Amino acid sequence: MFETANVSIFAGSGGRIFAERMCSYMGKPLGSCEVITFSEGNTFVRVNESVRDRDVILVQPIGMRSNDEFVEILFWMDAFKRANANTVTLVMPYFGYGKGDKKDEPRVSIRARVCAECMELAGADRFATMDLHAQQLQGFFKRPMDHLYAMPMLTEVIKRHVGTENTVIVSPDAGFAKTARKFADVLHLPIAIGDKTRADHTENASVLEVIGDVKGKNCLIVDDFTISGGTLVNLAQALKARGAQDITAMLSHNIISRRGIEKINNSPIKMVYSTDTVYNPNIIGEPKFRTVSVAPMFAETIMRYYNYESINAMFTKLPEKVVEAGFRFTGLEY
Amino acid sequence: MFETANVSIFAGSGGRIFAERMCSYMGKPLGSCEVITFSEGNTFVRVNESVRDRDVILVQPIGMRSNDEFVEILFWMDAFKRANANTVTLVMPYFGYGKGDKKDEPRVSIRARVCAECMELAGADRFATMDLHAQQLQGFFKRPMDHLYAMPMLTEVIKRHVGTENTVIVSPDAGFAKTARKFADVLHLPIAIGDKTRADHTENASVLEVIGDVKGKNCLIVDDFTISGGTLVNLAQALKARGAQDITAMLSHNIISRRGIEKINNSPIKMVYSTDTVYNPNIIGEPKFRTVSVAPMFAETIMRYYNYESINAMFTKLPEKVVEAGFRFTGLEY
Amino acid sequence: MFETANVSIFAGSGGRIFAERMCSYMGKPLGSCEVITFSEGNTFVRVNESVRDRDVILVQPIGMRSNDEFVEILFWMDAFKRANANTVTLVMPYFGYGKGDKKDEPRVSIRARVCAECMELAGADRFATMDLHAQQLQGFFKRPMDHLYAMPMLTEVIKRHVGTENTVIVSPDAGFAKTARKFADVLHLPIAIGDKTRADHTENASVLEVIGDVKGKNCLIVDDFTISGGTLVNLAQALKARGAQDITAMLSHNIISRRGIEKINNSPIKMVYSTDTVYNPNIIGEPKFRTVSVAPMFAETIMRYYNYESINAMFTKLPEKVVEAGFRFTGLEY
Amino acid sequence: MFETANVSIFAGSGGRIFAERMCSYMGKPLGSCEVITFSEGNTFVRVNESVRDRDVILVQPIGMRSNDEFVEILFWMDAFKRANANTVTLVMPYFGYGKGDKKDEPRVSIRARVCAECMELAGADRFATMDLHAQQLQGFFKRPMDHLYAMPMLTEVIKRHVGTENTVIVSPDAGFAKTARKFADVLHLPIAIGDKTRADHTENASVLEVIGDVKGKNCLIVDDFTISGGTLVNLAQALKARGAQDITAMLSHNIISRRGIEKINNSPIKMVYSTDTVYNPNIIGEPKFRTVSVAPMFAETIMRYYNYESINAMFTKLPEKVVEAGFRFTGLEY
Amino acid sequence: MFETANVSIFAGSGGRIFAERMCSYMGKPLGSCEVITFSEGNTFVRVNESVRDRDVILVQPIGMRSNDEFVEILFWMDAFKRANANTVTLVMPYFGYGKGDKKDEPRVSIRARVCAECMELAGADRFATMDLHAQQLQGFFKRPMDHLYAMPMLTEVIKRHVGTENTVIVSPDAGFAKTARKFADVLHLPIAIGDKTRADHTENASVLEVIGDVKGKNCLIVDDFTISGGTLVNLAQALKARGAQDITAMLSHNIISRRGIEKINNSPIKMVYSTDTVYNPNIIGEPKFRTVSVAPMFAETIMRYYNYESINAMFTKLPEKVVEAGFRFTGLEY
Amino acid sequence: MFETANVSIFAGSGGRIFAERMCSYMGKPLGSCEVITFSEGNTFVRVNESVRDRDVILVQPIGMRSNDEFVEILFWMDAFKRANANTVTLVMPYFGYGKGDKKDEPRVSIRARVCAECMELAGADRFATMDLHAQQLQGFFKRPMDHLYAMPMLTEVIKRHVGTENTVIVSPDAGFAKTARKFADVLHLPIAIGDKTRADHTENASVLEVIGDVKGKNCLIVDDFTISGGTLVNLAQALKARGAQDITAMLSHNIISRRGIEKINNSPIKMVYSTDTVYNPNIIGEPKFRTVSVAPMFAETIMRYYNYESINAMFTKLPEKVVEAGFRFTGLEY
Repeated sequence: MFETANVSIFAGSGGRIFAERMCSYMGKPLGSCEVITFSEGNTFVRVNESVRDRDVILVQPIGMRSNDEFVEILFWMDAFKRANANTVTLVMPYFGYGKGDKKDEPRVSIRARVCAECMELAGADRFATMDLHAQQLQGFFKRPMDHLYAMPMLTEVIKRHVGTENTVIVSPDAGFAKTARKFADVLHLPIAIGDKTRADHTENASVLEVIGDVKGKNCLIVDDFTISGGTLVNLAQALKARGAQDITAMLSHNIISRRGIEKINNSPIKMVYSTDTVYNPNIIGEPKFRTVSVAPMFAETIMRYYNYESINAMFTKLPEKVVEAGFRFTGLEY
Repeated sequence: MFETANVSIFAGSGGRIFAERMCSYMGKPLGSCEVITFSEGNTFVRVNESVRDRDVILVQPIGMRSNDEFVEILFWMDAFKRANANTVTLVMPYFGYGKGDKKDEPRVSIRARVCAECMELAGADRFATMDLHAQQLQGFFKRPMDHLYAMPMLTEVIKRHVGTENTVIVSPDAGFAKTARKFADVLHLPIAIGDKTRADHTENASVLEVIGDVKGKNCLIVDDFTISGGTLVNLAQALKARGAQDITAMLSHNIISRRGIEKINNSPIKMVYSTDTVYNPNIIGEPKFRTVSVAPMFAETIMRYYNYESINAMFTKLPEKVVEAGFRFTGLEY
Repeated sequence: MFETANVSIFAGSGGRIFAERMCSYMGKPLGSCEVITFSEGNTFVRVNESVRDRDVILVQPIGMRSNDEFVEILFWMDAFKRANANTVTLVMPYFGYGKGDKKDEPRVSIRARVCAECMELAGADRFATMDLHAQQLQGFFKRPMDHLYAMPMLTEVIKRHVGTENTVIVSPDAGFAKTARKFADVLHLPIAIGDKTRADHTENASVLEVIGDVKGKNCLIVDDFTISGGTLVNLAQALKARGAQDITAMLSHNIISRRGIEKINNSPIKMVYSTDTVYNPNIIGEPKFRTVSVAPMFAETIMRYYNYESINAMFTKLPEKVVEAGFRFTGLEY
Repeated sequence: MFETANVSIFAGSGGRIFAERMCSYMGKPLGSCEVITFSEGNTFVRVNESVRDRDVILVQPIGMRSNDEFVEILFWMDAFKRANANTVTLVMPYFGYGKGDKKDEPRVSIRARVCAECMELAGADRFATMDLHAQQLQGFFKRPMDHLYAMPMLTEVIKRHVGTENTVIVSPDAGFAKTARKFADVLHLPIAIGDKTRADHTENASVLEVIGDVKGKNCLIVDDFTISGGTLVNLAQALKARGAQDITAMLSHNIISRRGIEKINNSPIKMVYSTDTVYNPNIIGEPKFRTVSVAPMFAETIMRYYNYESINAMFTKLPEKVVEAGFRFTGLEY
Repeated sequence: MFETANVSIFAGSGGRIFAERMCSYMGKPLGSCEVITFSEGNTFVRVNESVRDRDVILVQPIGMRSNDEFVEILFWMDAFKRANANTVTLVMPYFGYGKGDKKDEPRVSIRARVCAECMELAGADRFATMDLHAQQLQGFFKRPMDHLYAMPMLTEVIKRHVGTENTVIVSPDAGFAKTARKFADVLHLPIAIGDKTRADHTENASVLEVIGDVKGKNCLIVDDFTISGGTLVNLAQALKARGAQDITAMLSHNIISRRGIEKINNSPIKMVYSTDTVYNPNIIGEPKFRTVSVAPMFAETIMRYYNYESINAMFTKLPEKVVEAGFRFTGLEY
Repeated sequence: MFETANVSIFAGSGGRIFAERMCSYMGKPLGSCEVITFSEGNTFVRVNESVRDRDVILVQPIGMRSNDEFVEILFWMDAFKRANANTVTLVMPYFGYGKGDKKDEPRVSIRARVCAECMELAGADRFATMDLHAQQLQGFFKRPMDHLYAMPMLTEVIKRHVGTENTVIVSPDAGFAKTARKFADVLHLPIAIGDKTRADHTENASVLEVIGDVKGKNCLIVDDFTISGGTLVNLAQALKARGAQDITAMLSHNIISRRGIEKINNSPIKMVYSTDTVYNPNIIGEPKFRTVSVAPMFAETIMRYYNYESINAMFTKLPEKVVEAGFRFTGLEY
């Protein structure tokens, strides 16, 4: 059991369920704090128990209410620091502004850098997150970060719920091919890659090709997230057109919109699995959407951190208790 | 006319009307830029014209969508700086997080300091704002700030639309008495102060007293803003109970909620005047709510800044063209 | 008794007596250090015992030799940090430059911000202070601060030495009315407010009015400090002119000048009570000036901090031992 | 011609030839400065002409003597800043430490972030670079950056020297597939991707597959650089084994080692084209290695920057004079 | 004449006479500003004319009221920056805290570093100073510094007022021998060095030896300053004891105390020359103390800076007008 | 024995032997880490054991591969910090860039300041070093530093290996005279000083004089280092010409070049002693060059630091075990 008396865990408004799952795994109570949104829109935060000289863990993704969640993080950091916390670790299972990671057109902001700097300025001493939009985002942060991966849990879902027979891993585009390769290595499967090309010399028309062999195969599309479902559904249709069998999607983060769900419901995709880094009310009751919890994986990371046990060892082979709890919390038991 | 070729003015999503009024006064076009809100909530900003080596003015209050507006400011600052703007001045007519200016209970954040630091980190070189919740907030900023006051415009409204005969200035509480004193000095009127006291030895019950003489007098309540209208209406009833005549409220910033408007409509308050620092759709069509524009005052400040004319001189006696345009922009002509 | 072996307390040149009172309350020896002022005016500081890995408390107000005391603080911070102190807490019972908290005229410095930033740059990790000139000054500091109040001790002085019968709390002006209201709430008394207005249309002449009823009442004027005594004496005369009985002044910080003392000696003010945050040699032997020590209150705060006890609980009802020691240290026993 | 009198261009020890090419294109003399390496290894830099209030451009890649070149940059920045330069722009055609852009194993440094921060600390105000190892590296820098691409020049080389008939663009692995896609879009060609998979359940053995069709086709391998030539040669052999015709490699940066050259000389690769961002003495006289200069592209960027012309417009279609000079400087005329 | 319209010169309380001499040399008026010291010791500064977008020069040594002068500098920097000055240059002819330049005993502060950092934090963009206690102090500052030397002016004083016949330059100790060597090089004279050694094995007794030949020679003792005169007088006696003829002292900075003057008046030293970097009222009317102004040297430096002329060229051979004005301002004409 | 379980010691590529000597003295194993230099010159560092929450000591001088060693330090600091080390202390026995400690000609860098700032930025929390080129260099660092001296070990070498009979300490120039004085005080010897003067009015010719008496005496030249041996050999010849007997050189740091060794071998210098702060392969097998280890002195400092024993006490009289180990490690036993 987790004995470190000096650690206190709190949840921001977007991380409550995730934090409760972490606490349940740890056998530790969740700290008392509150967030108030005033009627003109201001956010106010208050910690309701002493954190003096304690190692504070705040659980808050930047998910589907990104600005509110981000600003809340800034205020939490300041509140904990002014309350004399010893250290503050931000467990941010999803970093929604990670998408703003480069200046690929003139006069835009590199939003992920802005967010990272502000969170550190406000007081964050350490970070734990999962599947950043690009690995390089780690370098946007000056302070230490534990960067976890959804893949170990998602491959367990594949093994125990989907199966890998006659299957190919499909990356939706060249940019995600590297991660698809990693899934393929773990599961000993081949890969295929979606490849959008211009149909002719006109600028806008494009054709979606698939590089690699998918005929008669089950396809496991992997991606970090989808919002509108567009890319996924287009790819699924292209796969079908090339003779693919069952099509399943495995996503790291679940931030799909209502419209995206409808699109997927009307598509050849049979099932979409993702993790619970973001609480997404849109998918409640949707039969094509299933979730596996990575909260135990974060909890185990925190526990090992404070117990001076190896964190990396845990990823070579996920401890069974982490998998079991991850499935159980979201009703995926097998 | 304003000839400074090197200044470009842009508007954030919350400051468009205000910026247009500034540009109209200046005879200058508004710069082209856009804000996109993605369906999962992320904000994206893009500047559509070159700002290389230019002095950029961004107009954006932190008003009724405070977190979105604040985060947008951070991204604007970064976008302008990475686009090689020479300087970036933030015209923030209202700083909604100014209310978070102290740690008056344990384990809360001093939110105004957090916001000020982040805006400076993101790239703001200079600020212009109006009626900060406390004058001390200037010291939360390291960079130069022009701090304007609503009072010169509001006293013009009083003189030309309300009248000062047989009138007393009323501060809703001791905290705002100092500003009320300034109104009174300019208009040569006496003051009265609302004073909430405990009725007896129990902790919670309180009685609203009024210190100073209001009997048979017209009352001009001054305050920086109201959200729910509660304090204003209670005070108005107390004034009536002590024999006051007409009651009018003069507010710096207009962030009143729908419920607040209803409360005031059912109260003895005859009219609420405020400035246009925040675009508040709630008051559209409400006969008891009238607005005067301070955009010309900000525009004149910017123009004088770049023309090396005295800014302070302008406040001793507001130029008639500033008053005229301020009334005209909001249909207050007399 | 205070057992925290890892805390060392030192006194700067302006905080020696205050620190000795704190140590006496704590039953802890004062650390050895020295300050040398060279004949050309340079200040030199030296710590005479190891502080390696210790939590250092330095006691030094910015009082009546403000620049010397402030510069000394900078050098102490640097000396402790370079000597490998674990943390350095500055107990600054009075922050004299807190008066420079805004830019209320063109081209002046916000001196309190400058001082706060420099003290943090030099190494201060935490602060404890009392009755800042404005609560917002907390936001000038990035690091944690314990902000104490004189009111709990001064109200004990009122209860045990002055009495509250037939009494009104008087604020010298609108700006201090909010604090006066708090005294009044604790003591269940009404308030009155001094109100300086222009006598006519000329700019300079002014008349001191009193808002609220003082006729036949004992008056307790509350203020944070006086230097020249001018405001206090003018107010006292105005109160007398309106039929007030006994007039007593309660000040947070005692930095009155020799001339101020003379003025008060020749005024209707019967007694001036203040705390011992600043060592003021001017008042020695002056019968109208009495002091109560808040050193025990600071000492208790430090002890609770390191013993993980609640600090806020202590202010709801000051522990009797704090009151008793505070009175005893300055000869106010009853 | 470039008339901006206020810009001075200097070259570090690794950027002299590149800077001379830039100056030649601009019709501007190179500034006088010197680097001395003392016999114990220390680097010393000195600027030999006044830079007071001037906009300085320093040209220095972090190339094949990476630590010497990086440290030199730090000293140049400091020297220019202490000599009162107005701004300092670092033209760093190749950023060799860009490879250290993530923490992909425990307890390593994110070296690119360290370098970026130190260069900014030392005084760099702006950067211009080309083909960073990952686009996200832009976010490691706080200051503005012009990020150029080799592709427009390399595609000109392909069009004018290699030809595109019956050709496929080949990415060596999934990670570079996105950039290969861009080449393919510009040249209207299909792509193929090298795909290294584990041969069986043992950990280390791997097989290089090729996803996509290459039979009977000419192959243009694109990559950002090669050091040992290993990946390139393996891929070329795999392509040949699948029936490919002519194989040519297009590299952004040329940092190949002597051993790498030998490997390529003994391989099916017919020609390796790269840019001149790094001066690589290894390739002198090697018939399989040809270079095209991107110095004119950088020079044109600087000129447009100071002439307030559009930089982005230039990349839609490279000005012919840029292409012409780029070919001419390295003897690639056609 | 100095035509740079954009430069404004102001004087702090300790630099008024020096600044007036600079302005007289430049033919430029001194800017209007004021310093108020409140009766409790607080310093308040105010600039009385616009500095918006101007290059401000503030003249203030850290001299004989070191803490007041240093704190004033901090407030001036902040006031100028908040008033939108373009740049602020601190002309600090003497940096009194330069003596605190190392940690030569345990648990002391490196006071010069603390001061340098605070002045930069408060807003100083550039510095000009003279004869820092050690050349290395330049590295305590991050921002550019013009470091001037008294030697060119003092050697003119020697040549025109003292003479160099049969003369030896004497350094009071090993630490200053390097600077003495420079005087000797310029004047083509030999040097001698005072050398304090322990007389025997006891710890404290010491004997002052003189290394080098002084018999029958005129001695020119050079040093950066003296406070108590002790070292100078001891050395003079030792020189006399070894058969020296006339003894004259040349000091960079004049901060001698009243007691020091008396000591020197009763010593074999015939005359003490120094510069006017510090205004020292102690020496008024003292016949053994004469001063030469270096204000023209600073003024010429500033003028050349803004006229883009070489500053270093000026030190190879001081312009005659600089020497002439330097002598004239302090009545040293010949 | 050294029991502090929480300290881990690692060696950079230039500090391995020194670190092993420290560990041997401490009875502690050296931590596992590795440095890889890629064939294009990049440096890569990796820590091979957990440092989570540990106090890390990294041993690395900036010696004869200064840029590689310096850049390595930056990466080590970052790697340790991102691996969650509690603190990182840099034991840098020699700081080769300390020579760049001032701006003594126009437009050069103060390289020591640049290095100091970068090392702190990268994560160094504390420093231990020896005989900085100037004591003032301590002030280039913001973080705490233990500054050790070679003198206590070198005087032991003198006493036990060289002898002090009929001996004079010789400083090569005025600049090092102060340190020579300290050797002389400890050994109760007189001093002499080399003094380079211009022979006549031409600029370049110079004559080396010796101030002080050396006739018939043994000379101990002390200096911090020599690279080319030039100054030492010239001085030795001048001493011989003035009738000196045996000449021995005592150097703090050994960074002499091959050519320097040859020069000294052909000179009147009998022996050169130095410490082992830098590993210098040039001197292996050279009979005139002997080394004493100061690693035990650093080890003892670290141990006392973590055992809360006095460090300064150790320098009054070096513990015999430190001397004994220092001699033994380099084969200097007597």
